[in-house]
Parts: sequence; C-alpha cells; structure tokens
Amino acid sequence: MDLIESAANAIKPVNPECYSTAQRHLDNLTKPLGSLGRLEEFARRLVAITENERPSFDKKVIFTLAGDHGIVDEGVSAYPKEVTPQMVFNFLRGGAGINVLARHAGSEVVVVDMGVDFDFGGVEGLIDMKVMKGTRNFAKGPAMTKNEAMKCVESGIELATGYAKKGYKIIGTGDMGIGNTTPSSAIAAVITGAAVSDVTGRGTGISDETLVTKIRVIENAIRLNKPDAKDGMDVLAKVGGTEIGGIAGLILGAASNRIPIVIDGLISTAGALVAYTIQPAVGDYIFAAHNSVEKGHRVMLDAMGLTPILDLGLRLGEGTGAALAMLVIEAGLKIYNEMATFEEAGVSEKTED
Amino acid sequence: MDLIESAANAIKPVNPECYSTAQRHLDNLTKPLGSLGRLEEFARRLVAITENERPSFDKKVIFTLAGDHGIVDEGVSAYPKEVTPQMVFNFLRGGAGINVLARHAGSEVVVVDMGVDFDFGGVEGLIDMKVMKGTRNFAKGPAMTKNEAMKCVESGIELATGYAKKGYKIIGTGDMGIGNTTPSSAIAAVITGAAVSDVTGRGTGISDETLVTKIRVIENAIRLNKPDAKDGMDVLAKVGGTEIGGIAGLILGAASNRIPIVIDGLISTAGALVAYTIQPAVGDYIFAAHNSVEKGHRVMLDAMGLTPILDLGLRLGEGTGAALAMLVIEAGLKIYNEMATFEEAGVSEKTED
Repeated sequence: MDLIESAANAIKPVNPECYSTAQRHLDNLTKPLGSLGRLEEFARRLVAITENERPSFDKKVIFTLAGDHGIVDEGVSAYPKEVTPQMVFNFLRGGAGINVLARHAGSEVVVVDMGVDFDFGGVEGLIDMKVMKGTRNFAKGPAMTKNEAMKCVESGIELATGYAKKGYKIIGTGDMGIGNTTPSSAIAAVITGAAVSDVTGRGTGISDETLVTKIRVIENAIRLNKPDAKDGMDVLAKVGGTEIGGIAGLILGAASNRIPIVIDGLISTAGALVAYTIQPAVGDYIFAAHNSVEKGHRVMLDAMGLTPILDLGLRLGEGTGAALAMLVIEAGLKIYNEMATFEEAGVSEKTED
Repeated sequence: MDLIESAANAIKPVNPECYSTAQRHLDNLTKPLGSLGRLEEFARRLVAITENERPSFDKKVIFTLAGDHGIVDEGVSAYPKEVTPQMVFNFLRGGAGINVLARHAGSEVVVVDMGVDFDFGGVEGLIDMKVMKGTRNFAKGPAMTKNEAMKCVESGIELATGYAKKGYKIIGTGDMGIGNTTPSSAIAAVITGAAVSDVTGRGTGISDETLVTKIRVIENAIRLNKPDAKDGMDVLAKVGGTEIGGIAGLILGAASNRIPIVIDGLISTAGALVAYTIQPAVGDYIFAAHNSVEKGHRVMLDAMGLTPILDLGLRLGEGTGAALAMLVIEAGLKIYNEMATFEEAGVSEKTED
C-alpha cells in the first residue's frame, strides 16, 4: 500500500459526540446560548478533530508551496514566470504578504519548492521537494506523469506528518506559482462539473482579452487530456500543478494526524478538492479561510460543503487568507478555554425559554 | 459652547488626498494591484484618519460601557436585570467573552459604569461615570432628561479624549446592559425610518411571544415620546440608554481626536447613529466590526454607508466583535508598514495591462 492510500485509509469522519461534548461546555460559559456564533462552531470542530477536550494552538505553521506551470506559454498570466523564484526569495527574506500576516497570526512560514523552474542551489530556509522544473504545458498533453503527481502528494503528506510529530497543532496552506489559477480553475471545472467560464477568473489581474484566452485554453486542455473527474490523481496529473498536489498531500497528511488544516483561496482549495476526491472525510478537518475574489473558489467550497470564515476581497494567495483565518479560529479556541462559567462567575442564567 | 458641540465642530471629513497617497505606497508592495482587498482599504483609511503616513497601533483600548434599562419592566428580556452588575464583576475578573477576545487582540478593556442599577461602592478597576441608576421605563415617558442624556455623551467624549492623550491609537466600543437591544432597536427605527418589526430581534434569545411584546412596546413608546428623528440627543433622551449615549460620546471624542474607532454590534451602532445624527463626518472615522445577527444592525450600518468587516453570527455585544475586527484592521496596517516593495525585493512587475 502506498503512502497516499495509507494516509487516506487512516482518515475517519470525526465523532459527532465530540461536538455535543464541546457544546455542553460552551453552553455553561457566561454568554447567551449560541451568541458567539461561528466562534463556537470553530471550538466544537477543534475538539472533535483533535478528540481533545482542551485543544491548544501553541505551534502553528503555514506551508507556502511554490511551483511553475508550462501552461503560461499559452499567454494566460499577467506576470512573467521569473516572478515565482523572485517571490520565493522574498518569502525567505520575510518581505511578502504571507510573512507579514503569519507574524501577525503567530505562525511560522515554511517555504517549499515543489516544482519551480529555477535552480535555487540549496539556499537556506527553502525546503527542497522539487518534483520537476515546472509542469509541462497541459494545452499539449498531461502536465505531469502519474508518478510525478504521486510524488507531489506524497511530499505534502510527509511534510504534514513531520510537523505533526514536531508538535504543531494547526496547519495552513498557501501557494506561489505564476499561472497557477489556470490549473486550479481546470481542476474546479473537471471535478465539480461546472462550466469553465463559471470557475475562471482574472488571477493576478489579466485583461478581458486574456481572460477569454484563458477560458478557451482550459476548455481545450480538458477536451485534449480527458481527466477522469472521479479520480483526483488523474485530474491532478493531467491539468494540475506540483504545488497543488503538495497541498492535496498536506490536507491528507494533516487529517490522518487529526490536525486541523486551514485552506487559503483558489489554489489551495483546488488542492483540497483533489484530496476530497481521494477521501471525502477530509472535509471534517478543513477550515475554509476566506471567500476569494476568484469565482471558482466558492464553487469548490460549495462542492465540499465548506463555508468560508472571512470575506475581505482577498486574491493574493501565498496563505495570506489562511493566516488571518487562523487568528479567528484561535479566538474560538480561547473562548472555549478561557471564559468563565455561569457558576464560576456567579451570574444568573436565563429566566425565559 | 458645550462639550458636545465643540467636539462635533472639531470633526472634519478626512482628506481624500490621503487615500491616494496611501494607495500609491500599497501599489508598490510585492503583490498584484488591489489583491489584498479590504486590508488595503483599512490601511488607506488609517492613513487618512490619522494624517500619518506611518500609522501605528501600539496602544489599543476597548471600552465596555454598562447601564440598566427601566424598559425591562415591560418583559422584553430573557435575563433578569441583576445580570448587568454580575457581568460587570465578571469583566473586572477577566472571565467574560470581551476579556478573552481583547487579550487575543492585544487590547486593554476599560469597564465603565454609565448607569447600572447597583451600588458598586468604588470597586477597583471600574470607572464610575454613573449618570443614573438605570434609565426610566420609556414605555411611560422619556428614558432620560435632556441633561442626563448630555451627561452620558459628554462622559464618552471625556473618556475618548483622555485615552487619546494617553497615546492610545485605536478605540473599540462595547456594551453591557440587560434590555439594551430594546432602546437600540427604538433608535434604529426612529432615525432610519424603518418599521420597528424590521429592526427588532431576539436579543439574548427571547421567545416568539416576547418578540411580539418587544415590538409592540417599542412602537407604543415611539408614539408616546415622539422623538425628533433629526435630533440625535432628543432620540437618545427619549428612547435611548446611558451606555448608548456614552458610546455616541466615545465616537465623537475619537473622531475629534483623529482616532479610528471600531464599533461592535447593535447597541454600539445605535450609539454611532446618534453620533452620526449630530455630526455625519464621524462616518469617516468608524470601522464597523461585524454583521450582527440582530437585524436592526445592518439597517443602521447601511444608513451610515458602513460595510461590516466580519460576519460570524455574533450577537454577544460587550465589544467582542470590535476586538476581533481590531485584529483584522491591524493586519491591514502591518501590510502597509511591513511589506517589501517590488524594488526592495527585486521582483518583476506586471507585463500586461
């Protein structure tokens, strides 16, 4: 049995009794029943995911996975491909959006080369899991071989399991890769069955004309490669990307270790959808950070029954939404762990039902 | 000229040129243009409010203002009135929702007795600005005299100005007062002109039957007291509350000191609406923390042209939404202050327009 199969088999739906146990504690806290809304939901889910009645968040990590995409040869992106390694160096120096927001959230950022078309020569701070120097142009054939796609997912599982063993309690996902909204929209269209035009947006800010090209490129590529919508690994190999595969692996790895995982925007959610196709029970372990401007994002979240936490018009990626959402999820955890009960505080309870 | 008038006169709309200055800096940061959505809006607004190109948040405070309400005699609340002072003690011991979330946001909590029907006897940590021991039952006549209402607003202005002088850079508002959704809905109906049934909700969780009573009580009280919708102080005195007046004062005081102010849910927004009626330019200084479950809340935000930051199904009050929103606003500030520019990071800019 390979690593992907054994991780998928280890993931079980969470025990619904844990939700009730957690809610009973929440209902004893000095507030009207249910008045902290989704913060209470987050607390219940954290208790159920970890099967720990006093979960903690002492160590947090966001993985920013980077990869390049052969599909940019079709003219689908507003930025040149060189920006992928340039931004990797920016992450390593701490100057990017994800660095700022992860510091704000008290989370580490781990930058991983999954498939950048650049030789980093062992630069310090970068985790090298390079599967290939950029995917192949999937307008002309599969982006990856089945083996390359498996290697991406296995790397993500290994990362998550390694950090679980080091005591990290929550994992966030992020991405960097010029052109990567194109494979993400392709994955969204294939797996959800939505029209390509309903799941394809402007990425980093392309023109009307380039958007038309992008939609046509995706439609043609799906026709050419014929990915099997029921087989997440086949979709990933044919129209996906290395960082998307890595994210799918992070999700399988986190869930198999009973660790909550916060997914960022369009690209991370495409990775989540691949993982969900392999093992639908991962949905119990996922927190959807935010509602991206990219329209394919919500379609995928709906397909997995996930409701985004924030809606701030973000479309940067890198894990920026995940960092912010971690702060909000942690608020639910602290409510659960730190608020006084009616009895402790000597506060009268409700007189009317 | 009294304190309210002089504060109102000191408040000017922010200079729109400051938005452009701030946006120019945001557009140089290593991210696609506009890709951090509302975080960029928050940064622009902070620059414009403070007229400081490098604003900071080193000291934050949330004021939780407490008061009792004679209107509870009409049977409009699910909890007994004793809960107001009990919760004040809970705040002072640090066990309430606002304490947990303010700690999470790195903000102090300042608890103020604006008009609780209880003698606290100088308990440590509580600021005594008691105007009266609970408002009068406004089903039978005005809740407060004009002088009492003025005293509430003046106290809020003094609080905000005092903390501005002590170097606090952002202020949040919160409330505690059994029965206080009733005056808040009354204020919403009078000032926005909405039907009482469209702005009245279940507060801490009343039954269908009590909700019908609550709506009827508010409708009758408005008919009896005839508040002048154009005169915020008249509305406050006739159908308001002491903590709501204090919050109106905090907003006038913050704006007159060019300090951003984060308003919580229904009750804080009723206070904001009173302040807005006195000086509409306060809108430029206000951040609407969240979209409360209480339906009158959104009606008031719309009337002031404010868009809530979070939507988490909260309905606790105390300033809990304001604490969470501060963390998100601060994220925008850190993006502005800490991210690298394209030039600093050696990242290529967009190739397509």
